Amino acid sequence: MTDISAKDVKALRDRTGAGMMDCKKALQESGGDVDKAVEILRVKGQAQAAKRGERSASEGVVQSYIHATGKIGVLVEIDCETDFVARNEDFTAFAKDVALHIAAANPQYVSEEDVPEDARNAELRILEEQAAESGKPEEVRKKIAEGRLRKWLEEVVLLQQEHVNADKHGGKTIEELRAETSAKTGENIVIRRFTRFAVGEA
Amino acid sequence: MTDISAKDVKALRDRTGAGMMDCKKALQESGGDVDKAVEILRVKGQAQAAKRGERSASEGVVQSYIHATGKIGVLVEIDCETDFVARNEDFTAFAKDVALHIAAANPQYVSEEDVPEDARNAELRILEEQAAESGKPEEVRKKIAEGRLRKWLEEVVLLQQEHVNADKHGGKTIEELRAETSAKTGENIVIRRFTRFAVGEA
Repeated sequence: MTDISAKDVKALRDRTGAGMMDCKKALQESGGDVDKAVEILRVKGQAQAAKRGERSASEGVVQSYIHATGKIGVLVEIDCETDFVARNEDFTAFAKDVALHIAAANPQYVSEEDVPEDARNAELRILEEQAAESGKPEEVRKKIAEGRLRKWLEEVVLLQQEHVNADKHGGKTIEELRAETSAKTGENIVIRRFTRFAVGEA
Repeated sequence: MTDISAKDVKALRDRTGAGMMDCKKALQESGGDVDKAVEILRVKGQAQAAKRGERSASEGVVQSYIHATGKIGVLVEIDCETDFVARNEDFTAFAKDVALHIAAANPQYVSEEDVPEDARNAELRILEEQAAESGKPEEVRKKIAEGRLRKWLEEVVLLQQEHVNADKHGGKTIEELRAETSAKTGENIVIRRFTRFAVGEA
């Protein structure tokens, strides 16, 4: 078995926020390769986080973001399981990232389940009509419309959007960032609701 | 006519934000009494502001307030007529005061017109039933119920609430503070909308 130094364990722990024993095991599993150990922890953490999905998230934080001009503002509630995690650095950083993202990307819903049936059907009808104009066979047209509906959902659903700061987050979606934060903190994390005001839009 | 010094005019202007000529006239009218001049300007300003009520307020600011615990957050849009006033000190101070007030007082609607007919009627029915138990004549009961409805509206309507910081605002309502800010800045000011999130309430 590879010999793992306490220093390496500490470094991995600082980087991922995972527990001491989990970090040691991951480094042993990866033969001391730090990047590989991070990946092992990530996969393991997400699997655990998925299990946690059913646990109640009744603690959390309300985060705001006001754009420098003062013309756009966002309020978002992000929940976790304990007040301890609500004050955790990774958790609060995630909350700030989400608030900023909402200000820039202007999503309409948190998750796909929040899209009202009416709005979804209305959009699908328009896309089907557009596809009909292509003159292609019905089966193909249906697939085109469904593909475009997916694209539309990616535009309006917060969790499916890629974070606007691609430099910082490398094109990860909000859902991916949420799952990572959940893995790091060891708690179920839920983006509960958000509001975005832009002056003069109402 | 009382002789008014430029220094007095300047002092009144600093205190009220009113125009130089308006300050001079108010001081002449009050015979040099500063407090009386402030009152004259206030009444005059509010009359002008009432006239301005119809002018469009399409500029403004989005202001947030997060309570120290991070568990309660508020987002409010307050509109005015020009970007110049949107960056005015009195205007931004008013926006901050309103956001803090909403966090503490938890109003449900901006103005009385925003209270849904259903909610109002449901409340009135309960109050009428309560009044019926008093055994008093119907006319008296009706007046009791109507009086209590007024009280209820003061509790749920932002503009009718007294600002929670009575030390600073001396029991003035949000509507009074709004009218004052309108008089000071010379523009129509509208509290457009607000949202208040408390962790775990949803």
